[in-house]
Amino acid sequence: MSKTEKNRTTVDIYGQHYVIMGTESSSQIRLVAALVDDKMREINSKNPSLDVSKLAVLTAVNAVNDYIKLKDQLERLQAELQKEKD
Amino acid sequence: MSKTEKNRTTVDIYGQHYVIMGTESSSQIRLVAALVDDKMREINSKNPSLDVSKLAVLTAVNAVNDYIKLKDQLERLQAELQKEKD
Repeated sequence: MSKTEKNRTTVDIYGQHYVIMGTESSSQIRLVAALVDDKMREINSKNPSLDVSKLAVLTAVNAVNDYIKLKDQLERLQAELQKEKD
Repeated sequence: MSKTEKNRTTVDIYGQHYVIMGTESSSQIRLVAALVDDKMREINSKNPSLDVSKLAVLTAVNAVNDYIKLKDQLERLQAELQKEKD
């Protein structure tokens, strides 16, 4: 299968079906869906009064926050590696 | 302010108010909220029939997918740095 071909994966997140299209493998998409489902359930257990859309938005906020922190870490590591190579 | 003190930041995402509690700075939280809002609007423009909760779930899927890809990249870089140091 060529790298640019799109996969179509059906997943279940928080009791809803989603068809996800993308170049990622189906196993990667299923892993991502399971992580999102887990996170939504975790946030729900702490804030049981939130509706599904707010729960999902807060899950997205959480994931983007983690992404930015990881990106900072990556940039520091890239600078460190550059220093080692110089 | 001590590092473990929690900040309380009010943000607006996709027309809804959210109060976000966490150890991150308010400016970091506002940046994250703006990124989530942008991503929701981008996904909405491609799939205008999605309701807000599905839109938010797909935004979370997107963010977690990006996070995992970045984590792989970080792990490869850590291994490379270790090799340089050895």
